[in-house]
Amino acid sequence: MPKYLIKAMILPITGPDDFYPQGEIAIDGDRIVAVGERGSTPSDFVPERVIDLSNHVVMPGLVNTHTHAAMTMLRGYADDMPLMPWLEQKVWPFEAKMTAEDIYWGSALALCEMIRSGTTTMLDMYIMQEETAKAVLEAGTRASLSRGMVGLDMEAGEKSLQEGIELFQKFHNAGEGRLKVLLGPHAPYTCTGEFLQKIKQEAEKLGSGINIHIAETQAEIATIKERYGTTPVKWLESLGLFGGQVVAAHCVYVDDEDMDILKKYNVGIAHNAESNMKLNSGTAPIPQMLAKGLNVSIGTDGTSSNNDLDMFGEMRSASFLQKLIVSPESLKAYDVLEMATTGGAKVLGLDDVGKLAPGYKADLISVDFDQPHFYPRFSIPSHLVYCARGGDVSMVMVDGRILMQDGKLLTLDEQRICAEVEMRAKRIAGEV
Amino acid sequence: MPKYLIKAMILPITGPDDFYPQGEIAIDGDRIVAVGERGSTPSDFVPERVIDLSNHVVMPGLVNTHTHAAMTMLRGYADDMPLMPWLEQKVWPFEAKMTAEDIYWGSALALCEMIRSGTTTMLDMYIMQEETAKAVLEAGTRASLSRGMVGLDMEAGEKSLQEGIELFQKFHNAGEGRLKVLLGPHAPYTCTGEFLQKIKQEAEKLGSGINIHIAETQAEIATIKERYGTTPVKWLESLGLFGGQVVAAHCVYVDDEDMDILKKYNVGIAHNAESNMKLNSGTAPIPQMLAKGLNVSIGTDGTSSNNDLDMFGEMRSASFLQKLIVSPESLKAYDVLEMATTGGAKVLGLDDVGKLAPGYKADLISVDFDQPHFYPRFSIPSHLVYCARGGDVSMVMVDGRILMQDGKLLTLDEQRICAEVEMRAKRIAGEV
Repeated sequence: MPKYLIKAMILPITGPDDFYPQGEIAIDGDRIVAVGERGSTPSDFVPERVIDLSNHVVMPGLVNTHTHAAMTMLRGYADDMPLMPWLEQKVWPFEAKMTAEDIYWGSALALCEMIRSGTTTMLDMYIMQEETAKAVLEAGTRASLSRGMVGLDMEAGEKSLQEGIELFQKFHNAGEGRLKVLLGPHAPYTCTGEFLQKIKQEAEKLGSGINIHIAETQAEIATIKERYGTTPVKWLESLGLFGGQVVAAHCVYVDDEDMDILKKYNVGIAHNAESNMKLNSGTAPIPQMLAKGLNVSIGTDGTSSNNDLDMFGEMRSASFLQKLIVSPESLKAYDVLEMATTGGAKVLGLDDVGKLAPGYKADLISVDFDQPHFYPRFSIPSHLVYCARGGDVSMVMVDGRILMQDGKLLTLDEQRICAEVEMRAKRIAGEV
Repeated sequence: MPKYLIKAMILPITGPDDFYPQGEIAIDGDRIVAVGERGSTPSDFVPERVIDLSNHVVMPGLVNTHTHAAMTMLRGYADDMPLMPWLEQKVWPFEAKMTAEDIYWGSALALCEMIRSGTTTMLDMYIMQEETAKAVLEAGTRASLSRGMVGLDMEAGEKSLQEGIELFQKFHNAGEGRLKVLLGPHAPYTCTGEFLQKIKQEAEKLGSGINIHIAETQAEIATIKERYGTTPVKWLESLGLFGGQVVAAHCVYVDDEDMDILKKYNVGIAHNAESNMKLNSGTAPIPQMLAKGLNVSIGTDGTSSNNDLDMFGEMRSASFLQKLIVSPESLKAYDVLEMATTGGAKVLGLDDVGKLAPGYKADLISVDFDQPHFYPRFSIPSHLVYCARGGDVSMVMVDGRILMQDGKLLTLDEQRICAEVEMRAKRIAGEV
């Protein structure tokens, strides 16, 4: 990779007052070496390529901490339905027909959309994740992957656990460290206690984290209450699942004690406002979580319940949802930007990602501010959260490598990917 | 204007099953003469210009029924604040410093953004609307304008009413009928009963409609209850304000009887989901309104409480909000598209706008579907509401005239407008 010097407005997400209206950022290999005002880069840094993005805002790449990437294959296949008929009549029969190749192409489509809309890192959970791993390695993004494991009987569970372990052995730290692998028990209501404890043991042996859905719906709360007489969080604590890296998606229904437990074990939260809205799941108590000092990050969930992977839209929805439910002062623009960048990196245990600062990975995006919806420019954070859309992203770099520039994806064959997905999705729908 | 033949996927919004995957639309002057499958246009129609948009979806232009266009000047100036401090400390002092020229440039910026995001008609309420009228005439869009009138004392009210009447006399039906003018009493809590009745009399004399905010917040409900012992809707009915064309923005807090009254007088509703979320106003009972047969349309409100004018985002938020509050089956994609097109036209009394059908005005937009977030293509309405964003709009035509094509605005000097707004907004903020 050449040494880059990028000239732009820079919002480094290193603190609420940090902004360089005429800034520059110096990149050597996969790392940032300097960020500051124009001319502040040490004079011994000699760039091989200078990129002028003066009317663009450069910020850290977005971290999407809850996805099911290959579900792009189901985008628009079933909408406006109640949760259970949607799953039972539409999603599950469709998924049962998906081949490994379908997973590959569906994941590749998700990555096209993510890069175009400024997401540089995702945490994914799905089946046949080695196909998603292949697509990520080709795309050049960063990703944490987890084989989703359902285990209400031990035999089916065991098989998915073995696949999860193999995924870890094969892909953890692959792609110069861009890939990470976690174990992915689906949820407390789809796994037995015995199975969850088995997964925890294996995670400890491997040194891997855990990615799990927790407390997404009222139905789940009722099920866990009936089965175990307690809340999902308390039940998981009693099983010893927490401790070590755990990412908990949703956490819509968590009480005060649950939140204290999540804080005690430093569990990372992946908040999915749009999916929770579309599926009528409810509103997670994000301001209370933040007040308790929990690590909260932002996810889109899969495109079957969203239906896009646009983290800019997701940031806005997360903020507006809390403003509606709690107060207009909830989830201020800069706080949401932190959740979607440094917050996501923290949840994923990536301690050199999510900020633009010397020594950090060169994962960054630019947003084209030379458009009417970004005027006047009173507040850059406000515009990024309340006005920007995925399509405003003009350049994407991960690990010092440019993945998109001037409207073109440089690592993926977008046209072929769209055509493959169109053909395959229609084939599957015909078979269901 | 040349005779156009546009080849595209066509969603005419003439019924939920109407869609031409390989369609064409013939336009003569300001009107549509034929819509159908490729080759279906009568052979005596000889186009002077053929536009090939095969991978794009052509649909009616969006109708935004609640805006304060010139408030783009305040975009990002004050966010994340409670309603009253936001108004008293930020919005009102800023507005008090705005000159006629500021209103012109602010309106022009709003029109740039609207055209780029597919809005072809707006219903605006603000001060110095003759400046907004000038901008609309230059932009070439369609608009209904109303001078906002606050009248808690008769003298101030009278002045704004005279300005509203002059606006009507000067601009109603201007621009080959593209401009309409309504009288714009601000709200039941900011106008006395006497003043509202005076406005109603003048509206009847002029033959104009009325544009008013109703039941936006719980505070308004409490105020009206305290002053008049009833609800805003019942109080306005008792004053005789309804009957004739009335557009009511918000209607967040309306009870069953209120909705029956709104139905009885055929009052048009402008629903503003994002503004209601951002300002913590609440959730309007849209499914109940639709069940009662009310005309419901969609608005963005001003950019101080949104902060963009993107009707695609607004459609999505309107749907997701009801799914969260009521049910995942609420506000299905096609229903929302109707609200944002034919619904808006009906509310504005424009009986030849909002659909693509022979005899209708040639107000249409195309959306570039050759992008990863529009694959696979199971449902065009789903993709338009749940995945499309303003920036996906590729072409805009109003009254048979192309206003945007290939990423370029053809009627407005966008660069100058952005620069003027930037300079003026900063000047005003410095004066406050």
